Amino acid sequence: MAAKEFSEYHTIPFYECDVNNQVTIPMLINILILASEHQNTELGVDQAALISKFGIGWVVISYSIKINRLPTNNATVKMTTRGTSYNRYFAYREFWLHDEQGNELVKVESVWVLMDEKKRKITPMTDEIIAPYHSEKVKRVPRLPRPEIIKNLADATAKKYQVRCSDIDFNGHVNNSHYLEWMTDALSMEFLDTHTPKQIDIRFDNEVKYGNLVTSSVVVDSQDHDRIKTVHEITANDEISASAMFIWRQNNTKGNN
Amino acid sequence: MAAKEFSEYHTIPFYECDVNNQVTIPMLINILILASEHQNTELGVDQAALISKFGIGWVVISYSIKINRLPTNNATVKMTTRGTSYNRYFAYREFWLHDEQGNELVKVESVWVLMDEKKRKITPMTDEIIAPYHSEKVKRVPRLPRPEIIKNLADATAKKYQVRCSDIDFNGHVNNSHYLEWMTDALSMEFLDTHTPKQIDIRFDNEVKYGNLVTSSVVVDSQDHDRIKTVHEITANDEISASAMFIWRQNNTKGNN
Repeated sequence: MAAKEFSEYHTIPFYECDVNNQVTIPMLINILILASEHQNTELGVDQAALISKFGIGWVVISYSIKINRLPTNNATVKMTTRGTSYNRYFAYREFWLHDEQGNELVKVESVWVLMDEKKRKITPMTDEIIAPYHSEKVKRVPRLPRPEIIKNLADATAKKYQVRCSDIDFNGHVNNSHYLEWMTDALSMEFLDTHTPKQIDIRFDNEVKYGNLVTSSVVVDSQDHDRIKTVHEITANDEISASAMFIWRQNNTKGNN
Repeated sequence: MAAKEFSEYHTIPFYECDVNNQVTIPMLINILILASEHQNTELGVDQAALISKFGIGWVVISYSIKINRLPTNNATVKMTTRGTSYNRYFAYREFWLHDEQGNELVKVESVWVLMDEKKRKITPMTDEIIAPYHSEKVKRVPRLPRPEIIKNLADATAKKYQVRCSDIDFNGHVNNSHYLEWMTDALSMEFLDTHTPKQIDIRFDNEVKYGNLVTSSVVVDSQDHDRIKTVHEITANDEISASAMFIWRQNNTKGNN
């Protein structure tokens, strides 16, 4: 029995776009998560139900994002997701973003765990929660690339961010999209204006909290001109919260990539 | 001839909501502006056309926002706007937000000018630009309340924010909603968790730029328990960029206001 797919359409408003009029990476994640939340609701296993019935919630461990093209302001996109497979502790979820002509714009792979909200500990998958997705039970879920770690922080450019009240969601957690905002903002405006990511591998290790001062560090590796790479780390209280690797391509002309 | 009204529907996604599951004030402004941009497009006088044909753009001077109730996650709202009236230099635009039962949730009044993009100077309204709205030509547009100024900055709580690349839009300007984010974030999490604004008067004076370090100062006046007031100032390079006054009411219970 194949995993159930869920699709919906979304039109990108101006406030989800960046200086190049393309959807921002944090908003790309938000709209895809929106589709998965709508699937959860349709299947009767939404976040609120999981918390109230079982005291648990889904937490993402890692994303691997392949970007062919980012949609621009006012474009209508089709978001598709499915809970492809799972084992005792991990669930593997895929996402796709297509344009109205059916071209694949973005493909995202992700790995999730179920977290006991009170104990903050990973709990095993249960049939009640996973059955509605028709996910395949597997021995091992696909392993996503583990981002490199910055070898020498002295080589990195770093910016500091105070976690804002507006970064916190209804469940009291920092929305994951903010890690991507801190990561990209550590790069210069000039770089962001002239480059678009084509691959992003990100891993979440420790949650940051309201009031934390986070440091976003980045090293730009542009030795290979055709494959500009940036390596990112988010740290708080001397602990790595998230790490990522981005591969970029140069934009041709502004607003016309 | 009455001013043309434009309406559209919007369903609030989780990522436009705050810790109380209500739409954030910055997102409230974004979705209303989205409706006005769609009206501009429908009437053939969208931002891109104004810039390319005339080298000018709309800039908001002030908002006066009356909030009966803020919509929550997943609610569908109707956004309505019209360019009500104008004189030589100012245009008066109104916005409404209604729930699906037709109850008025939010009413916004706003005053706008046309700005020459190169000279950064206000230019007079022209028939070509204003005629499509069927706005009433008046001698004086309504004057919106001018927010108080913080009398003694030593009494204020202040937080500093570096303007981020992601705060900058396609036209190279800071999206106005970010001023509201800096203003509200200067308040404590405890305050924001237990209060909801019912009135906001905001005035924009000087634009902040990428890389600016802005200071968001606030004084909380809660002497009158039924009418908690906060007075806000955004400054950059020792110049006031925006000022605002918020009137708040206490929430009853979390997520159920």
